[in-house]
Amino acid sequence: MDVKVQKNLLCLSREAAEFGPFDAILELEGEPDALWFYREHVSRGVPCIWRGAVAHWPAVSKWSNDYLRETVGSKEVSVAITPNGYADAVREDLNRFVMPHDQLMPVSQLLDVIERKEDFPGICYLQRQNSNFMEDFAELWKDTDLDIAWASKAFGAQPDAVNLWIGDERAVTSMHKDHYENLYCVVRGEKHFILLPPTDRPLIPHMKYASARYQLDLASREFSVVDEKDHGVIPWIPLDPQKPDLNRWPQYRHAHPLRCTLKAGDMLFLPSMWYHHVSQSQGAIAVNYWYDMAFDMRYAYFQCMDAITDTVAEGNCCAVGDHDIEDEQELSTGKT
Amino acid sequence: MDVKVQKNLLCLSREAAEFGPFDAILELEGEPDALWFYREHVSRGVPCIWRGAVAHWPAVSKWSNDYLRETVGSKEVSVAITPNGYADAVREDLNRFVMPHDQLMPVSQLLDVIERKEDFPGICYLQRQNSNFMEDFAELWKDTDLDIAWASKAFGAQPDAVNLWIGDERAVTSMHKDHYENLYCVVRGEKHFILLPPTDRPLIPHMKYASARYQLDLASREFSVVDEKDHGVIPWIPLDPQKPDLNRWPQYRHAHPLRCTLKAGDMLFLPSMWYHHVSQSQGAIAVNYWYDMAFDMRYAYFQCMDAITDTVAEGNCCAVGDHDIEDEQELSTGKT
Repeated sequence: MDVKVQKNLLCLSREAAEFGPFDAILELEGEPDALWFYREHVSRGVPCIWRGAVAHWPAVSKWSNDYLRETVGSKEVSVAITPNGYADAVREDLNRFVMPHDQLMPVSQLLDVIERKEDFPGICYLQRQNSNFMEDFAELWKDTDLDIAWASKAFGAQPDAVNLWIGDERAVTSMHKDHYENLYCVVRGEKHFILLPPTDRPLIPHMKYASARYQLDLASREFSVVDEKDHGVIPWIPLDPQKPDLNRWPQYRHAHPLRCTLKAGDMLFLPSMWYHHVSQSQGAIAVNYWYDMAFDMRYAYFQCMDAITDTVAEGNCCAVGDHDIEDEQELSTGKT
Repeated sequence: MDVKVQKNLLCLSREAAEFGPFDAILELEGEPDALWFYREHVSRGVPCIWRGAVAHWPAVSKWSNDYLRETVGSKEVSVAITPNGYADAVREDLNRFVMPHDQLMPVSQLLDVIERKEDFPGICYLQRQNSNFMEDFAELWKDTDLDIAWASKAFGAQPDAVNLWIGDERAVTSMHKDHYENLYCVVRGEKHFILLPPTDRPLIPHMKYASARYQLDLASREFSVVDEKDHGVIPWIPLDPQKPDLNRWPQYRHAHPLRCTLKAGDMLFLPSMWYHHVSQSQGAIAVNYWYDMAFDMRYAYFQCMDAITDTVAEGNCCAVGDHDIEDEQELSTGKT
């Protein structure tokens, strides 16, 4: 029976991608109608891009490092620091999920480090997702919008969080998903996304790791990794979609990764529960809007499918799809 | 593993009902905003009722049998005729899915039979779902609306079909689901609905039946049942939610049936893929609007869960939930 359930799960991944369709990210023009956006993208869970949607923001032309030093340079912010660019990611050599060293520093120092004006012993990323743009950066509000008006209309609510991201090009966000509908706007530089639909869950390895945190000793310039006993065991994804190990996780070859690059002024709608991996160019800056997602029947379906995927994986000690599927026809549920 | 997958499926049913929530059918007032309706009811798949929503239709006061005889009495329509009121339902004594005898008769005769002015040897139901209101009843259009304006705005399309229903109180629609979003308006009499969410699929027995059709011999007044070889095998639901046989299908006690009665002027939003069973008062008349549903990720989830339910049932020769679940806690996926 295990193999049959595995095939049912593979069929989910394939049929959802056909329905989406998830073979490319739609590029749209102009401001969308709120109802149309909700019906065609939020409800269906289909990502899309608007090129130049926020190109009119003063931020896009104004936010040079000098301008930021003038306006918010003395502000102390919490910066994620790692030796390798990966904050919140699996270190397989340590069998740990490792969080970053968090350090308070003035924005001017962060910019110095990113510009390589200061020789700093770690890779810095301003990536606080506590609505840090709303909490800490009132001086910059006038250069952007505090919500996306048509999106707030569509969701019937203001954003739950607005986050500012300033990064070193070596800083990478490992693959994960969020319980938010996400409108992601690039102000400066480039952001590179790899997206996978939630229905690819059976094809994406999830493992459990003890949690740890980097600690940076500024005197010796050395990082250590210290267990974080209070965080307990964290389920995370060991697979890197930039270079997936298909020998170890052969089922991933059936997955449906979508790639896109956002440039200054572009906006991405990243639907809730979509897996995403993010990398960037040097000194990229972005502002993103998190709107509450609906916890509804679709979420219950995801949870069920997630649990069945785990059940199958535990039952036969191999992940879904590890066996070769010779006859694609067999994958059909035979239902219409 | 089977038992664990069964529990995962039961958890789906329970969590979806909690998220819905599906513990009662919401009663709303006033004309809804199209975006709000799409977001809160269509996208989430949550049924609701508007009392008196179409009470202003001229039809509600005008459509007496005499008025219908005057306006459309001579029109020949195809009427579903059965010996027991069940058109398109399982006859377990015959191990068949039995369709009705279809007979053309003038509307005036249909009304005579329903009023018992004519002693007819079968139970009649005008239930053609081929947009019969749009195809056959132009004389009655002025007494209703040809679409629900806010719904057409929400769905971004006109109805795919508008159907007229005129029934004997003994005519029953057995439990099934449709691939349409449904706005159901009662013009006269009462309609009684039992609704179950699509996520209850693992708790609802589905079996396969050879198809057959009633044939009524008007001379002898006798019905016979004739196999319909061209229709092949039909999957259908043998369970009657008005009197479920819990000895045979004990898992149904975990299901989430919702009941409601619509009176003249009331409107029900019956979301796509919801199971429904319909009965009625004498001479009830209704008009319903079918809007195309989105075949999206949620539909792919349903298909997958449907297939896994079948896989599990085949694997252990019992339906999901046949074993007793002592510890409800165990049903949790343990995810948030």
